[in-house]
Amino acid sequence: MPRKIRIRSDRVGLPPGTLVYTGEKRLEEVKITLIEYGPELFKERELKAFEQCLVPKGESTVTWVNVSGIHRVENLEMLGECFGIHPLILEDVISTEQRPKVEDLEEYLYIRLKHLDYDEVRGEVTIEQVSVILGSGYVLSFQETGGNFFAPIVERLRNGRGRLRKLGADYLAYALLDLVIDKYFVVLEKAGYRIEALEEELVGNPGREVLHPIHHLRREMILLRRSTWPLREAIVSLERRESPLIKDSTVIYLRDLYDHTVQVIDTVETFREILTGMLELYLSSVSNRLNSVMKVLTIIATIFMPLTFIAGVYGMNFKYMPELEWHWGYPLVMLSMLLIAVSMLAYFKVKRWI
Amino acid sequence: MPRKIRIRSDRVGLPPGTLVYTGEKRLEEVKITLIEYGPELFKERELKAFEQCLVPKGESTVTWVNVSGIHRVENLEMLGECFGIHPLILEDVISTEQRPKVEDLEEYLYIRLKHLDYDEVRGEVTIEQVSVILGSGYVLSFQETGGNFFAPIVERLRNGRGRLRKLGADYLAYALLDLVIDKYFVVLEKAGYRIEALEEELVGNPGREVLHPIHHLRREMILLRRSTWPLREAIVSLERRESPLIKDSTVIYLRDLYDHTVQVIDTVETFREILTGMLELYLSSVSNRLNSVMKVLTIIATIFMPLTFIAGVYGMNFKYMPELEWHWGYPLVMLSMLLIAVSMLAYFKVKRWI
Amino acid sequence: MPRKIRIRSDRVGLPPGTLVYTGEKRLEEVKITLIEYGPELFKERELKAFEQCLVPKGESTVTWVNVSGIHRVENLEMLGECFGIHPLILEDVISTEQRPKVEDLEEYLYIRLKHLDYDEVRGEVTIEQVSVILGSGYVLSFQETGGNFFAPIVERLRNGRGRLRKLGADYLAYALLDLVIDKYFVVLEKAGYRIEALEEELVGNPGREVLHPIHHLRREMILLRRSTWPLREAIVSLERRESPLIKDSTVIYLRDLYDHTVQVIDTVETFREILTGMLELYLSSVSNRLNSVMKVLTIIATIFMPLTFIAGVYGMNFKYMPELEWHWGYPLVMLSMLLIAVSMLAYFKVKRWI
Amino acid sequence: MPRKIRIRSDRVGLPPGTLVYTGEKRLEEVKITLIEYGPELFKERELKAFEQCLVPKGESTVTWVNVSGIHRVENLEMLGECFGIHPLILEDVISTEQRPKVEDLEEYLYIRLKHLDYDEVRGEVTIEQVSVILGSGYVLSFQETGGNFFAPIVERLRNGRGRLRKLGADYLAYALLDLVIDKYFVVLEKAGYRIEALEEELVGNPGREVLHPIHHLRREMILLRRSTWPLREAIVSLERRESPLIKDSTVIYLRDLYDHTVQVIDTVETFREILTGMLELYLSSVSNRLNSVMKVLTIIATIFMPLTFIAGVYGMNFKYMPELEWHWGYPLVMLSMLLIAVSMLAYFKVKRWI
Amino acid sequence: MPRKIRIRSDRVGLPPGTLVYTGEKRLEEVKITLIEYGPELFKERELKAFEQCLVPKGESTVTWVNVSGIHRVENLEMLGECFGIHPLILEDVISTEQRPKVEDLEEYLYIRLKHLDYDEVRGEVTIEQVSVILGSGYVLSFQETGGNFFAPIVERLRNGRGRLRKLGADYLAYALLDLVIDKYFVVLEKAGYRIEALEEELVGNPGREVLHPIHHLRREMILLRRSTWPLREAIVSLERRESPLIKDSTVIYLRDLYDHTVQVIDTVETFREILTGMLELYLSSVSNRLNSVMKVLTIIATIFMPLTFIAGVYGMNFKYMPELEWHWGYPLVMLSMLLIAVSMLAYFKVKRWI
Repeated sequence: MPRKIRIRSDRVGLPPGTLVYTGEKRLEEVKITLIEYGPELFKERELKAFEQCLVPKGESTVTWVNVSGIHRVENLEMLGECFGIHPLILEDVISTEQRPKVEDLEEYLYIRLKHLDYDEVRGEVTIEQVSVILGSGYVLSFQETGGNFFAPIVERLRNGRGRLRKLGADYLAYALLDLVIDKYFVVLEKAGYRIEALEEELVGNPGREVLHPIHHLRREMILLRRSTWPLREAIVSLERRESPLIKDSTVIYLRDLYDHTVQVIDTVETFREILTGMLELYLSSVSNRLNSVMKVLTIIATIFMPLTFIAGVYGMNFKYMPELEWHWGYPLVMLSMLLIAVSMLAYFKVKRWI
Repeated sequence: MPRKIRIRSDRVGLPPGTLVYTGEKRLEEVKITLIEYGPELFKERELKAFEQCLVPKGESTVTWVNVSGIHRVENLEMLGECFGIHPLILEDVISTEQRPKVEDLEEYLYIRLKHLDYDEVRGEVTIEQVSVILGSGYVLSFQETGGNFFAPIVERLRNGRGRLRKLGADYLAYALLDLVIDKYFVVLEKAGYRIEALEEELVGNPGREVLHPIHHLRREMILLRRSTWPLREAIVSLERRESPLIKDSTVIYLRDLYDHTVQVIDTVETFREILTGMLELYLSSVSNRLNSVMKVLTIIATIFMPLTFIAGVYGMNFKYMPELEWHWGYPLVMLSMLLIAVSMLAYFKVKRWI
Repeated sequence: MPRKIRIRSDRVGLPPGTLVYTGEKRLEEVKITLIEYGPELFKERELKAFEQCLVPKGESTVTWVNVSGIHRVENLEMLGECFGIHPLILEDVISTEQRPKVEDLEEYLYIRLKHLDYDEVRGEVTIEQVSVILGSGYVLSFQETGGNFFAPIVERLRNGRGRLRKLGADYLAYALLDLVIDKYFVVLEKAGYRIEALEEELVGNPGREVLHPIHHLRREMILLRRSTWPLREAIVSLERRESPLIKDSTVIYLRDLYDHTVQVIDTVETFREILTGMLELYLSSVSNRLNSVMKVLTIIATIFMPLTFIAGVYGMNFKYMPELEWHWGYPLVMLSMLLIAVSMLAYFKVKRWI
Repeated sequence: MPRKIRIRSDRVGLPPGTLVYTGEKRLEEVKITLIEYGPELFKERELKAFEQCLVPKGESTVTWVNVSGIHRVENLEMLGECFGIHPLILEDVISTEQRPKVEDLEEYLYIRLKHLDYDEVRGEVTIEQVSVILGSGYVLSFQETGGNFFAPIVERLRNGRGRLRKLGADYLAYALLDLVIDKYFVVLEKAGYRIEALEEELVGNPGREVLHPIHHLRREMILLRRSTWPLREAIVSLERRESPLIKDSTVIYLRDLYDHTVQVIDTVETFREILTGMLELYLSSVSNRLNSVMKVLTIIATIFMPLTFIAGVYGMNFKYMPELEWHWGYPLVMLSMLLIAVSMLAYFKVKRWI
Repeated sequence: MPRKIRIRSDRVGLPPGTLVYTGEKRLEEVKITLIEYGPELFKERELKAFEQCLVPKGESTVTWVNVSGIHRVENLEMLGECFGIHPLILEDVISTEQRPKVEDLEEYLYIRLKHLDYDEVRGEVTIEQVSVILGSGYVLSFQETGGNFFAPIVERLRNGRGRLRKLGADYLAYALLDLVIDKYFVVLEKAGYRIEALEEELVGNPGREVLHPIHHLRREMILLRRSTWPLREAIVSLERRESPLIKDSTVIYLRDLYDHTVQVIDTVETFREILTGMLELYLSSVSNRLNSVMKVLTIIATIFMPLTFIAGVYGMNFKYMPELEWHWGYPLVMLSMLLIAVSMLAYFKVKRWI
């Protein structure tokens, strides 16, 4: 799991703005989806590589370029040239280990965030970087892999129902962000179920097997937190920024987005607290168990050690041991052993050990 | 209990502002109470569904629509149309898992908070979302269930005593919030009694049975905290907002509300600290007990092991063991055993174990 | 002790500003002290009930009404009417479970704080609410019980020495607050002595009996903190408020008051940290002790178990055991036992257990 | 050590500004050093008591009065009268248990801080209060005891080298503060050496004897923190204050002072974290040791208990025990015992206990 | 390791601005590299000592003096004179134990930060102070040792490719800082690998040997944090400062630098949390192990102690023990022993110990 905290030491010493892909090596093909739409228009093309700048359309048309797979640097260079993106921003797009942020470059806004998903097969949360560039009349979006994240948006655009086709590029950018953040709730819901199940197990029978899952979930919460706290900052700065790229009517949607982000953070923090409480409960249960195990041992030892000693005494082979000759010797010894055992038990009763 | 942290994954991919009820499925009927009042007026009707917009009354009349049960989305859509409420706000009303907040939409204020109650039967705190919309001359309030929360307010309006009928819609909204927050004190009082009882038990006889209740209460405090910290922020923003919907004379009441919220938070935090202290005390007591159990075991073992060994030695069947033939052999051995036992006890006395 | 966290659930559903005393039921008589003073004037009267408004005196005269015992609501209503106090403020005065605060109502300032004292008999800190209302030319002060808190101030007024008689109502209000906060130092000094004594005990002989006092003191610090943090805020707001009721010459005294409050908080926090450190030291000592107890047990068991086993072997009754017949069998076995014991001890020596 | 947290309960009820010395009773004589200097001038006198106001000198002359020993209140009263110091400030000078602060009274600045030193003999940090009053052309400084703190400054003034004689009173005040704060580094260096030594001991052989020193150092860090955090605030306020008493050329020195203070705080916090980590390491080591002790015990007991039982069985005196008569009984039993022992050891090997 | 927290007690009492080197004594030679460059120019000289001021070149020429080894104070004094650096800043340059910061002295900017590296041989992070002074047309940089940190920058300048030669002194300063901060990622990547390896070991087989490495890494994170938090502050202040020395085109690069610093801090904090979680997991595992060890011991003891006692009883030598004479005595006793053993095992099964 720690591999999720990727660190970019390969770039040390390179001049800033150098486009070198430093993420995991990928062999998949890059998929570029090019969509142009307006209230009355919807055109969709799919490219293998971005080779030619687009001819600008009329005012009400929005151009959306979605790049699935960022390891082919040449596409990004071409896009950068066509839309006039600063090399440092392109470097940010392909550096997949960075924190969520929003950067305002006047002519366009750069938004970076993390797309989370729960991988059912490996039982792990997967993290992927998503970059969105919002310019005047266009939106560029970049995903690490070819996952079909934005299919619902494409569908809504294709159908032409709802507000999406009527409102501009800023609303599209919002819709993309909203979709990514909505996924967080899916991941949290999964985590919530796992926590619930663990807690029931913990209260019923706190065995050793709950310890690692609790630890695993706590690790996941640390990583989620890492993705969400800077996201909150980023969305605040987006909402408050008086960029002409964002229309006033979109601000209320950004506020809604902010609310969702805060709720995600809130839930992550609550889960962290609950997990910490569960760990403490677990540790207390282990201590308790140790205590009761030791009590059993002590009770057994305290009763049988003196008795065994007495039996040992009368098992000695001294020639002159008068008790051995007595007729009532044996029953008397047995009786006194019984007395010792009973008084020990009474002592433990008083001490509330049994 | 973790079910209280509800997460809304059902909504992923839906366009924002889509009205789909995502809470627990409910079968109860919706109850809509419609009250119009003024200094000289009080009219109350009860509807099963909201089907027709109201004819606006004169200036001094306040219209209050209370919706008990938000799972019938069509009522909300109708209300939204009549009073001009933004779809995102209506979505907020039916999304029952969100944080308390205040939103100012100029023509109306949206206030969301949590209604807490202590369910005596299940021994648990129940959380329900309450939304209040304050517009010019009207108040809309929404509860999740058909609980009769606001009965005392209706009663005060019906009686016509007190300030309530004379002051406007903003005072009504305040009165609703005040009622909800007052309930927090009931819940906290119950928690306080339980803490007190647990603490007495803990000091008297720290048994295993206090561990789970302490954990349970800590969990409850985490949830209470989740409801109250954002509430504080919300009420601060309400008090400071220079909305024309809130008259100057109401601000002092909002400040009082703020004071109560801060006091709730304060108490929750204090309870958390006390519970943490109790857990630590419990753990220390368990350690202490383990220590004293182990001391008993060690004392017994340290005394009887050497003695049993000596008895074992003289129980050996060697042909040539001169001691066995001695006349005083047996009493001498018994004496030396006594000496060993006494010196062991003296050693423990010195080490302050007994 | 948890009773100190009083919660006001009795008031739920009452309209705000309703005067209902919700503290502990009290039977004592109320004592109202009425003092009028100026540079040349000092008049003191004692009343059982406040029934008549006062005739205003000249400009340089200050009227001070001290009410000891707030459970007689009719006195407060009368006072409220005479001095024009808002019902919400009167409600605050009799709600004895609230946090310290300062409220500015333009015509008067409302200051609420906690009077602490150390009850030598019950070995506990007692908390009582004190309210001070500072108006133009008058000060009203309210205590929960008939305790003679303000006697030193009355004395200083009667003597006429010092600044007190010459300076106005704001200086009197300051003097009252200063007196209350000075008491905090008395309580902290007591706590300091107890901590010191506990620490000496802890370092010398960390027995079980230090655990509960440490827990008790920690609880007290939680309560003290609850009283002092909001007090600090309140005094800051008092000092910064540009109320015409507070003369410029008094501000330096308020700053001094602020310094004292910060010092109280500082000391409370330091005590909390020290107590936490002491608890950790205690727990470490318990662990250490367990360790040394277990070492003794293990050493004894490891030495005597093999020896007892050997003795047991030669205590078996087999017909054909050649060793038993040997002449040197017994001394040889004893020698080998000695060797085993010595080598075990050497092993423990190497492992640094002894 | 807790005595270092002095609390001033003796002053309760006294009017503010009353000069009563409340520190430890001291018998030493007070030493007042009076220095007048300018670029060309250096005069030094020593007094037993301050009885007469000074005749003001020319503009470029700075007067520095250093009072060693503040228990003689009459000196302070005289000084207060001569230099026009507010009684509350004089009260602050003699109240030795207060927090560092800076107060601007327009005609002069009052600076209070703590002088730390490491007492080699008692192995403890000593804390003493130092007050500095910076007025126009004069500096007053007050120490609790007769320690010769400021000797290096006097020396630098006497020599006349460096900037000190040329720059004004504000630079002198800075120099005094700088000297006091430099001493903090001496104390921290000592603490650093002790931490280093403890850590080496802890890693090598984590015995019981490291527990108390760690606790002791943690206590010291709590006290250091108490002295340094408010100092930082004080120096920030000094640096930012636009007092005409502080020349622009001195501000860069104050910034340097600020840097040093922040570095002290930083180091204190780092030491605290390191000490906490050491305590955790210690506790883990203790747990580990307990574990290995218990393993030895369990291994021994698990091997010898069954063997002793078998020996006991064949030590029984039943008439009809066929095995006893067998010729190979004894070696067979010994062999089976060996098998049991070996299989037990194998089991522990598998469980990785040995 | 604690030696990394160097404290400067040697300077106590010295006047501020005195140039005395207080770091570790070094014998290496100082290496001064003098580079002059412009779009068309690149000159590089190496000096043993700085003895003569430089003749200023044309406007587009940048002078960069890199001093490797700051223990020769005379070089710094000469440089200070030539470039007009304040003595306090020179003192800062040679005081190697200070926190990162940025100071604006109008004519030049002083930037101090820490160069981190991972020493493979000693398995430790090494920390070195780097100072950069950015003036109009010149950059001075100071390293503690003769390490060739800045070789990649020199190389890029020499090649003349990229932006570096065309942009001014501020871009050079940025490039130096960027290089230093990039090294942090190398150190963090190393730490990440070590954490990953430790975690795998911890989950697989939580032995004693992971405790010290976890502690060691936590110590390293404390030190890293100490270097990075103030660095963030410093870079924020650099980015926001409206110094004419920093061109607008460079600000976006500083923002990138800020992002990297925040990411470093973020990773350090995440590592800290992960390490704390690992320590807790380790402790829980140790507790668990103790528990299972104790269970084995208790099971063994509880089964064999009663059996050994019974065997002891029938090993007693009383004359009149009727059972011994019975023909079925022996098998009956063996059978009852078996019953006891089985019922004990059943009891443990019920208690879920086995």
